[in-house]
Amino acid sequence: MIETLSPKKELEDLKADLSEVQELLGRYRLIERPEMQEREPGQSLADEQDTAELRAKLDSMHPADIAYVLESLPREERLAVWNLVKAERNGEILLEASDAVRETLIRSMDSRELVAAAEQLEADEIADLAPDLPQAVIHDVFQALPVEEREQLRAAMSYPEDAVGALMDFEVVSVREDTGVETVTRYLRRFDALPHHTDQIFVVDRNERLKGVLPLSRLIVSELEHNVGKVMVSEVVTLQPGDKAQDAATAFERYGLVSAPVVDQEGKLVGRVTVDKVVDFIRSKSESELLTQAGLREEEDVFSSVWASVKNRWWWLAINLVTALVASRVIGAFEHSIERLVALAALMPIVAGIGGNSGNQTITLIVRSMALGQVQRDHAKKLLAKELGVSLLNGLIWGSALGLIAYWLYQKASLGLVMTAAMTLNLALAATAGVLIPLTLTRFGRDPALGSSVMITAITDSGGFFIFLGLATIFLV
Amino acid sequence: MIETLSPKKELEDLKADLSEVQELLGRYRLIERPEMQEREPGQSLADEQDTAELRAKLDSMHPADIAYVLESLPREERLAVWNLVKAERNGEILLEASDAVRETLIRSMDSRELVAAAEQLEADEIADLAPDLPQAVIHDVFQALPVEEREQLRAAMSYPEDAVGALMDFEVVSVREDTGVETVTRYLRRFDALPHHTDQIFVVDRNERLKGVLPLSRLIVSELEHNVGKVMVSEVVTLQPGDKAQDAATAFERYGLVSAPVVDQEGKLVGRVTVDKVVDFIRSKSESELLTQAGLREEEDVFSSVWASVKNRWWWLAINLVTALVASRVIGAFEHSIERLVALAALMPIVAGIGGNSGNQTITLIVRSMALGQVQRDHAKKLLAKELGVSLLNGLIWGSALGLIAYWLYQKASLGLVMTAAMTLNLALAATAGVLIPLTLTRFGRDPALGSSVMITAITDSGGFFIFLGLATIFLV
Repeated sequence: MIETLSPKKELEDLKADLSEVQELLGRYRLIERPEMQEREPGQSLADEQDTAELRAKLDSMHPADIAYVLESLPREERLAVWNLVKAERNGEILLEASDAVRETLIRSMDSRELVAAAEQLEADEIADLAPDLPQAVIHDVFQALPVEEREQLRAAMSYPEDAVGALMDFEVVSVREDTGVETVTRYLRRFDALPHHTDQIFVVDRNERLKGVLPLSRLIVSELEHNVGKVMVSEVVTLQPGDKAQDAATAFERYGLVSAPVVDQEGKLVGRVTVDKVVDFIRSKSESELLTQAGLREEEDVFSSVWASVKNRWWWLAINLVTALVASRVIGAFEHSIERLVALAALMPIVAGIGGNSGNQTITLIVRSMALGQVQRDHAKKLLAKELGVSLLNGLIWGSALGLIAYWLYQKASLGLVMTAAMTLNLALAATAGVLIPLTLTRFGRDPALGSSVMITAITDSGGFFIFLGLATIFLV
Repeated sequence: MIETLSPKKELEDLKADLSEVQELLGRYRLIERPEMQEREPGQSLADEQDTAELRAKLDSMHPADIAYVLESLPREERLAVWNLVKAERNGEILLEASDAVRETLIRSMDSRELVAAAEQLEADEIADLAPDLPQAVIHDVFQALPVEEREQLRAAMSYPEDAVGALMDFEVVSVREDTGVETVTRYLRRFDALPHHTDQIFVVDRNERLKGVLPLSRLIVSELEHNVGKVMVSEVVTLQPGDKAQDAATAFERYGLVSAPVVDQEGKLVGRVTVDKVVDFIRSKSESELLTQAGLREEEDVFSSVWASVKNRWWWLAINLVTALVASRVIGAFEHSIERLVALAALMPIVAGIGGNSGNQTITLIVRSMALGQVQRDHAKKLLAKELGVSLLNGLIWGSALGLIAYWLYQKASLGLVMTAAMTLNLALAATAGVLIPLTLTRFGRDPALGSSVMITAITDSGGFFIFLGLATIFLV
């Protein structure tokens, strides 16, 4: 019988595992704090049984699944479970845990434990953990490594998080161009197992310079008497450690790659990138975009302390406070108009709010098209014309609707007309800013996805209040 | 010499291709509309040369790259290029184009051309195009297919876009359990090429029931005299066509898969899913999340018509108009207070705005943790307590800051105190709603990512105005 793991069943299993761990933990913890219950005869026997059961359960689980359980447990329970995990599995579990949870786990370990955990990992994996490890621990790990891995670790740690070098591993299988297919086949058969995600082996010359790749699916259908040079593929997507990880991800996506060789400036093979790392990168990138849009500095452990959460979120609130204050002062400048026609106070947030929504739609589209390389600078005029067209049409439709509502509420036709005009103008302002902000940010070498949304909201808020109250002051008061 | 394609160079090349196409097109179009310039002797010779050059350029490009060029060109130029692409490449290019652009291309083709384009594709690829094709075209394509592919197309089209069935292809290589490794090796060598992304072949019994998989990397290191049954892996992540694509993506990510078998309810092998499809799915899913957050119904062709854009965006503006009107009526109820203390009008948007930002932060975190399965219902109290703690702390910090500013602006201590109190209360409201909205939506089986943001903003706007103006009416007016 084949053991099938359907993804749905699998998630249910995971949740069942979580409940089981929590239940075992509940029993275990009652024992740990005997003051919380009367100890009954025979209790201590049951204690050890429970701990043993929980340990056994954890030993049987995949590291990714243990990481999930740890992430889903509140702080205290999380650390209790963490202490029961076998020490030699610490490293692989830390790798799987989310950044925020990994931090809490590492903080609970002493240097000796951390060094032991890191020593069980490959150089590229240690490099992934390194930003979270204390300097002293990294130093100790470094000293304990054999020379070759030490070099690899040094290399892997020298690249920024968004470079290919940070995604790269060193588990490459390579052969020479002039080897026969049969020899390669026999050579490979001597491996116990090929490195994970080996869909191709790399072909190099005597100086380790990359000459091509030999996909396994091609090796398997090749005549045994041919040379590698004859059957290899020599048009290869090749990465350099300093390339942007985003560009590598685009190449993997565009050409459906499973692995790609990484070469240095002289063309020497130094490592490879595999699709699982790329998928992780794409996922974490899209997640950080969503978090950034909501003004969260980083992923947050849902069970983190109040104080850690406040720190994660405060800068966004601070920025918005400043923009809100500016908008408030714009209103302040028109206080005499509001005093004379208080309906303005009730209507002005509508003009500002709809402008903000519309501007954010424009900016999202433009930023996305720019990321795909579809928007060139010479298209700016065309885009601006289109977005202005959209905003004028929307302004007329929604502005007129609102004008009618304002008229119906306050029985004042001129108020309705001012409302319509203000809506239309603010939507046009939103369209203009929505096109120009990302284009300008890019021209100055900034990432247009960061900060665009705050800027447009600030502009449409203050602008909306100014336009509406200004028109009202001229025509109504 | 190996031809390397670094991703950066590659993007530059793409942009160069785009410029080249545009330039060739510019020359070609001047000719097409002779009224635009005086025709000189010898002109018609040059004409044909330009067209031929552009055609040749397009013929030499990868379909994904042609799709990129088409997406980056304004409407008219896009269709001119599209007409010059070889008809037999239409199908593969349509597959690569974004939904919005694909639509414009399909609309420019007649039924005969569409049928011809579809007939060059595999059944699973036709199914991908099907939602955009006219009913009559699908009917014709269907009739033209051989029986087996017709069944495959029927199967692939019967699954919703977010099911595994929609990601699946039918290019499976399978062998029997009792075959020898050497026989398998010889069998595979008879292929010209294995299907793309073949990292493993599937092992089935005589009834096509899946028994296990044989990774190529394992086949290659296996002893030739062993049987497949001995060397195959029998613990396999297996999908069913009705499984959610999202769950499959999670499994691919969690276990770093390159391909996975798809079986029907009786365990019969019906197809496979490959990592490139999963990457596309993850990318388009994260993109649609970003678009949805900005209230865009779907991806929009940046060069689409004004009217198409208005339709894509109007519902979001309509919803926001309604919530803005509600908030406006809340203010309207306090008009007499504002008349007596006009400072309220200037200060109230700050209370509402900061509440909205803070609530969106909470909701983003909760929705994300729920998607990862980290939040169970019994955690609701704990989460609520934490978020309330964060909001109270933020309320005291920022509320006090704003209270001081309000006092400094209007020289009225009681106004400052009301401001502080209102901020704190509205942040607490935002935290409560930020936890409860996604939990409630989920309990009723709705996707918490959809609509949460609009709801929280509506609540913190109306709530913020009500709390601030209410407190002011009680204590100040």
